[in-house]
Amino acid sequence: MNKAYVHGYDHRENIRLQDQASTLVDLLHSDTSYPAGSLVLEVGCGVGAQTVPLASNSPNALITSVDISETSLIEAERKVAKEGLTNVQFEKADIFNLPFRPDSFDHIFVCFVLEHLAQPVEALHTLKNHLRKGGTITVIEGDHGSVYFHPDSVAAHKAIQCQVELQRRAGGNAMIGRELYPLLSQAGFNPVHVSPRMVYVDSGKPELVEGFTKRTFTAMTEGIRESAIKAGLIERNIFKQGIRDLYRTTEKDGVFCYTFFKAIGNK
Amino acid sequence: MNKAYVHGYDHRENIRLQDQASTLVDLLHSDTSYPAGSLVLEVGCGVGAQTVPLASNSPNALITSVDISETSLIEAERKVAKEGLTNVQFEKADIFNLPFRPDSFDHIFVCFVLEHLAQPVEALHTLKNHLRKGGTITVIEGDHGSVYFHPDSVAAHKAIQCQVELQRRAGGNAMIGRELYPLLSQAGFNPVHVSPRMVYVDSGKPELVEGFTKRTFTAMTEGIRESAIKAGLIERNIFKQGIRDLYRTTEKDGVFCYTFFKAIGNK
Repeated sequence: MNKAYVHGYDHRENIRLQDQASTLVDLLHSDTSYPAGSLVLEVGCGVGAQTVPLASNSPNALITSVDISETSLIEAERKVAKEGLTNVQFEKADIFNLPFRPDSFDHIFVCFVLEHLAQPVEALHTLKNHLRKGGTITVIEGDHGSVYFHPDSVAAHKAIQCQVELQRRAGGNAMIGRELYPLLSQAGFNPVHVSPRMVYVDSGKPELVEGFTKRTFTAMTEGIRESAIKAGLIERNIFKQGIRDLYRTTEKDGVFCYTFFKAIGNK
Repeated sequence: MNKAYVHGYDHRENIRLQDQASTLVDLLHSDTSYPAGSLVLEVGCGVGAQTVPLASNSPNALITSVDISETSLIEAERKVAKEGLTNVQFEKADIFNLPFRPDSFDHIFVCFVLEHLAQPVEALHTLKNHLRKGGTITVIEGDHGSVYFHPDSVAAHKAIQCQVELQRRAGGNAMIGRELYPLLSQAGFNPVHVSPRMVYVDSGKPELVEGFTKRTFTAMTEGIRESAIKAGLIERNIFKQGIRDLYRTTEKDGVFCYTFFKAIGNK
């Protein structure tokens, strides 16, 4: 199975996630701060792009960050150490087979993970089992169906749709953001509160033009070029035009919109 | 030209706009309050759905509300009087030929109007002429390309696309929301600040399920059924399925998203 497009597995993706986190960190993280002494589980930490803001915003919480990839964990550990953060411990583990007791965490944090899973509700069920009564789970996901821009472009939408289709073929769902409320509800969290986080970019916001439209979204879409063409999802020239049209939205009269969803569920 | 779908021209639309305003009033209006003594021009007030919150939030501003339709103005006047508001005067006028001197208003407010105009930049230019130096224009528009929902539905998207196409054929643009930044910039306002207002609806928000997804968005889409079928844009059974699927998003596991854009430009 071609995993080239999956987040966090190579250096370029690493840079992209890093850029993404540093651009989006306020938008996604600023309202997540856990009390001193809390035991927090971060699931699917990857190369640590979200671990750094998570640990920084909750300096006196004790964070356990797990991932299935040893390589990613080494990078995450390096990154967290570099930031001088000492409140994170890393462990290699599978989300469906976590080496923790039931009810052992006060809070759980899951960012850009469910989109890759064929059985997100089952994953949430498992996580709920490790959460103490009264604890919270925070889930953040994007939604590739939330993308629109000016000038509009059929080719750009086709290129974006390739990512949706590749992720679907790998068992994931690139449009999972909008589904967080039903997914968490089905897993038994109650109440569930979902807060959309829209990234709106026009040329009056040059830092988002660079940091989000160009270096996050368009770079991510460019990253699946060869996989998409190889899979027969798109012709090379259409893909090329789509990328050109995404860059076109970063010009003076361009606009780009994308929405992340942040859900908090209580056990 | 078939104008049946255009806002504010019949009683059903009137109710919808009323519902829309009472549901969305906080989202769209809460941060618009003009200082005492300000001279404010509302352009295209229609049946007064936005005039009521506008005048209520700026009780000591002097508001002049104009519309091209005499019938709408009578209804708007009745509505404003019913609310006990005395700071609004109404006048019949065309946006491209306003009976006011240059530089005569401190602020201008335009809501759900540009979407109907073939020449929105020219309209903004004209309005700018009536605004004093240092004054602001506030523009609010929806964007029919910002709609997505769960469960997803091809038929529902086709039904929504009919509205986009009918509006296009009438010279308007149902996806104008995303373009407010370039439009105001092109008209010479500077700086321009755009703030997206996303309506996110899940079953944890029953008042929005009723007030927005059902009685505003789906009702509006249902309202173009005959025009769309008559224009050959869609088959009756597909349209019917689309409407059914929009109602499906209001069930317990459903989610509905729509985004309005609010722009403020300075002269």
